[in-house]
Amino acid sequence: MARFLTIGERIHVISPVIRKALQERDPEPIIARAREQIEAGAHYLDVNIGPAEKDGEELMPWVVKLLQSEFPNTPLCLDTANTKAIEAGLKVYDPKPGKAIINSADAGSRIGMLEVAAEYGAMVIGLCAKEGIPRDNEERIAYCTEILDKAIAVGLNPEDILFDPLFVVVKGMQEKQQEVLDAVRQISEMGLKTTGGLSNVSNGCPKEIRGLIEAVFCSMAIQCGLSSAIINPLNKLLMDVIKTAEVIKGWNLYCDSYLDL
Amino acid sequence: MARFLTIGERIHVISPVIRKALQERDPEPIIARAREQIEAGAHYLDVNIGPAEKDGEELMPWVVKLLQSEFPNTPLCLDTANTKAIEAGLKVYDPKPGKAIINSADAGSRIGMLEVAAEYGAMVIGLCAKEGIPRDNEERIAYCTEILDKAIAVGLNPEDILFDPLFVVVKGMQEKQQEVLDAVRQISEMGLKTTGGLSNVSNGCPKEIRGLIEAVFCSMAIQCGLSSAIINPLNKLLMDVIKTAEVIKGWNLYCDSYLDL
Repeated sequence: MARFLTIGERIHVISPVIRKALQERDPEPIIARAREQIEAGAHYLDVNIGPAEKDGEELMPWVVKLLQSEFPNTPLCLDTANTKAIEAGLKVYDPKPGKAIINSADAGSRIGMLEVAAEYGAMVIGLCAKEGIPRDNEERIAYCTEILDKAIAVGLNPEDILFDPLFVVVKGMQEKQQEVLDAVRQISEMGLKTTGGLSNVSNGCPKEIRGLIEAVFCSMAIQCGLSSAIINPLNKLLMDVIKTAEVIKGWNLYCDSYLDL
Repeated sequence: MARFLTIGERIHVISPVIRKALQERDPEPIIARAREQIEAGAHYLDVNIGPAEKDGEELMPWVVKLLQSEFPNTPLCLDTANTKAIEAGLKVYDPKPGKAIINSADAGSRIGMLEVAAEYGAMVIGLCAKEGIPRDNEERIAYCTEILDKAIAVGLNPEDILFDPLFVVVKGMQEKQQEVLDAVRQISEMGLKTTGGLSNVSNGCPKEIRGLIEAVFCSMAIQCGLSSAIINPLNKLLMDVIKTAEVIKGWNLYCDSYLDL
């Protein structure tokens, strides 16, 4: 049974605490955020260092080594548009807990990340996009296919790609939600793995309902076949909903204590 | 936009309080259970008087008149296998708040309920079953079609039937959950309305997780097209999840306060 894969999103340069810690190479705030996410059940940790054009090649290996020395059983998802920073991170990454994931390739300017993934034996998130948000599912599936073709050409196993149809905000793009879920279904039916950023869905909604919106969208996406997501694992409702959806989907065996496992 | 229809399940002879109140024709406990469900947002109230072979023909009209005089804006779902009791209830039912729903017809011994529905201008739940739980979706769809054919023959509008594929317990029939959800999808794609008893899904599970299981199953079923359910409206998580799933499904417009509306 393939379990749903959760990628914790909270080590992110957008957070002032993390931004400062990354700039100052201060381990503690980063370790604290890693620990709380692992304890909450995240399988992977995303490490978003931003564009990092200046010092990405030093910064990414620093944070990879920091996290892997502290949490040797937790695999990482390296998140920056800076290809050299990704490569520098992968060079020091220990794949023992699981392959690194590159976040992300797309069908446009970031298509080269597929070769990087192949070269370093990493997985990669493949955004079904070229420039901005795809207009419709015809575009999404076309970009998905472009990425797939290129991946095969560079010797990357399709199993090592998590296709991201780009989740969009419910507030303002409500009429696109079923389209995105249908893309998840179509890509899953092609036998491919999928992922997406859940916080994209609830962005701009009142804080007190964001967790609920993410949880419900995620369960509906799992019904469509979604195989992983980039999430806030401190959202307890979301974690419980994911475990329950896995049971209903048949991805995990039911037992009375399944929430605690 | 067609909204998801909720049918409150808590006026049920299986509850000792309700059983006693029905036997003694004691209005208060029944009114209390009705009020709490209406306040929690139930659209319809199910009134399950059991087999009621002895006094159903008196009991059903008594409880229908009681509830309609107290709650004139809430339509009712009349729930018993006793056809004469259903007819007696329908004779006194005021359809102003909405058509009564008969719970239920099936493709077997209860197929006659379709004629009763047609005669009294009521809606009816059509169990996709003949004897016991259907073995697979081939049986479910065959029974659904039998009910549909019969309904058309007796002049009942297919829009007035809520097809129930029979939700089954996750604990013990976990491997059937996706089959049931696929039946919901298939019946919905035929342009028909669907319903089901959510407590069937969580039956036998620890009390503290039943509400979560029902909520997650319901959101996954709504993604498949489920248009109504028989529920416990006091399960606040379930009610919030339904409202959120409606927004993601595009059945209700998003606004920041959608949970409070």
